[in-house]
Amino acid sequence: MDRITELNTEDFSVVVEPGVTRKALNAHLRNSGLWFTVDPGADASICGMVATGASGTNSVRYGTIRDNVVNLEVVLPDGRLLHTAGQGRHFRKSAAGYNLTGLFVGSEGTLGLITSATLRLYPVPEATVAATCAFPSVQAAVDSTVQILQAAVPVARIEFLDDVTMDACNRHSKLSCAVAPTLFLEFHGSEQALAEQVQHTEAITQQNGASHFSWAKESEERNQLWAARHNAWYALLALSPGCKGYSTDVCVPISRLPEILVQTKEELKTSGLKGGIVGHVGDGNFHCILLVNPDDDEEHHRVTAFTKKLGRRALALHGTCTGEHGIGLGKRQLLQEEIGAVGMETMRQLKVMLDPRSLMNPGKVL
Amino acid sequence: MDRITELNTEDFSVVVEPGVTRKALNAHLRNSGLWFTVDPGADASICGMVATGASGTNSVRYGTIRDNVVNLEVVLPDGRLLHTAGQGRHFRKSAAGYNLTGLFVGSEGTLGLITSATLRLYPVPEATVAATCAFPSVQAAVDSTVQILQAAVPVARIEFLDDVTMDACNRHSKLSCAVAPTLFLEFHGSEQALAEQVQHTEAITQQNGASHFSWAKESEERNQLWAARHNAWYALLALSPGCKGYSTDVCVPISRLPEILVQTKEELKTSGLKGGIVGHVGDGNFHCILLVNPDDDEEHHRVTAFTKKLGRRALALHGTCTGEHGIGLGKRQLLQEEIGAVGMETMRQLKVMLDPRSLMNPGKVL
Repeated sequence: MDRITELNTEDFSVVVEPGVTRKALNAHLRNSGLWFTVDPGADASICGMVATGASGTNSVRYGTIRDNVVNLEVVLPDGRLLHTAGQGRHFRKSAAGYNLTGLFVGSEGTLGLITSATLRLYPVPEATVAATCAFPSVQAAVDSTVQILQAAVPVARIEFLDDVTMDACNRHSKLSCAVAPTLFLEFHGSEQALAEQVQHTEAITQQNGASHFSWAKESEERNQLWAARHNAWYALLALSPGCKGYSTDVCVPISRLPEILVQTKEELKTSGLKGGIVGHVGDGNFHCILLVNPDDDEEHHRVTAFTKKLGRRALALHGTCTGEHGIGLGKRQLLQEEIGAVGMETMRQLKVMLDPRSLMNPGKVL
Repeated sequence: MDRITELNTEDFSVVVEPGVTRKALNAHLRNSGLWFTVDPGADASICGMVATGASGTNSVRYGTIRDNVVNLEVVLPDGRLLHTAGQGRHFRKSAAGYNLTGLFVGSEGTLGLITSATLRLYPVPEATVAATCAFPSVQAAVDSTVQILQAAVPVARIEFLDDVTMDACNRHSKLSCAVAPTLFLEFHGSEQALAEQVQHTEAITQQNGASHFSWAKESEERNQLWAARHNAWYALLALSPGCKGYSTDVCVPISRLPEILVQTKEELKTSGLKGGIVGHVGDGNFHCILLVNPDDDEEHHRVTAFTKKLGRRALALHGTCTGEHGIGLGKRQLLQEEIGAVGMETMRQLKVMLDPRSLMNPGKVL
């Protein structure tokens, strides 16, 4: 089931079967003038991205998968076929009844099997430019992010990498960036609009003490940069051969990012854990990638304690225990603390309503 | 309950009680550098807009209310208080459990009472320019719209008014526009970016035979233009003193707009009905405002037959029977045709799950 079954270029929409990956879709779209924007890094299958509520680097400008799903075909646990927005329908908006599409996005396979997705596409920007920019502190990097967003610069990607991750990326991906809190940025638009966005952004970052501002205009340079970002996981793993990676994520109101990032780095130190921080900082979302010796049970215990504490710290700052990784098994307790008793009861009612025999991904989320 | 209880400017979010209207909110935000973008024309209460899934003129750029609600406080039918995203939380994205917020947006008061909403805000654009532009045909106006979107011009508003509505607006709002299919446009951005958007848009519309292109740069001129657009309802009513207005809306894939608009104008003629068409054409959504003699039962019958036929025509073109007006009582049959048997069963299950005694807005939607 890996066919692209319909492409409506005038309507900016496409229909895919569950096996289509985001790279395969964008390759298929190459000559259409359109692209699918959601980019979680890995070449994930799109219906998998729908089920997990994926987002990634472009979401600050183009939204998460939630904002880009128009319709879903779902096999319900009892075998009935549901078209969440009506069979064959695609439109930019609707006020017809309850939002069934939204109910299945991010449901982690617990409510039904997604067998087809209708997606929203965007026009390919006329021009693209990327940049890296090093800062004297985490605070300076986040302040720049907030100011860029407040200035209504339509930044397409704004990613944070901490000093540890930058060091790892320099080694693994042969970059020569400063080992410091860093933003990776990308801008989409006309040549003229880009020049203005770039100028505006440089002014903001310089006011915040940025140095080592380096622009990547050619597609080869840009690809190298984003490959380095997407390979941050492997770069960090390469710092500790033999270790396995353990990744967690949280999302907080963007104003609370500096304090939680600083606290998290402190906590990493005091826990004696190794790891780096990368984040979709324009959304207030970041990942902590920890390096764990698979034979060390005590270390594993410290890692799970660390992630629980990080989740609770995000909750205390009015955030969420997961911005894009989901609940799965590991964050079920945190979900209860996040959503409260009535929210949990409502979620359980939804599960029982659609899957009374708990056939779908049993034990997950709830 | 008309207080604005929290404003987080760095986080681009605000919390409102249900009595706050969109104009009151934007007045409150005046010195914050931020604004609330959803504009259905009327000065609606925001939680009412949430309940009905409102959208309006800015949605083509900033999304509908669905895209701009972060969290809701809802009194459930049994009296329990639900915070759809957890009490006090606000973030740009989350992957924590099922999307309860999305379930209540557009539920038309049938699942619970919304008592507080956390909303997303946007930075006020540096500059704004509006324009009107007359076309030789409906097709030419819609072709221009598609081409403007495909060219990735970040148009903030793109509204269609047919010849009948333009004539009414000229009389009622003292405009001096051509009586022809017309687009009302608005662009947001920096001065430099606007100049480019304007240039690009003028080139596209001229290729499609547009004439009478008229730019409104001063805020007074712009306000006059949008007041005329928002008063189209009253302008049309003034064409037939003593008549009442009857409004309906549908939304189709944008490529199908020309045919449905042309068919709808034909149908108006053959039904002997009076009315105009206005539409959020960038979303494929349009309204038909019909003028009905309240004492003429036979005419009323023709009006309801016309709206049913229009809804079915939208469904046949893969669209929805309502883009923003909702189902209420009048479109319950169309909803069944749109969403299919399994979708209807799922919606009924949701209703029974949350409101087993059918206390909330009974009889509506389902």
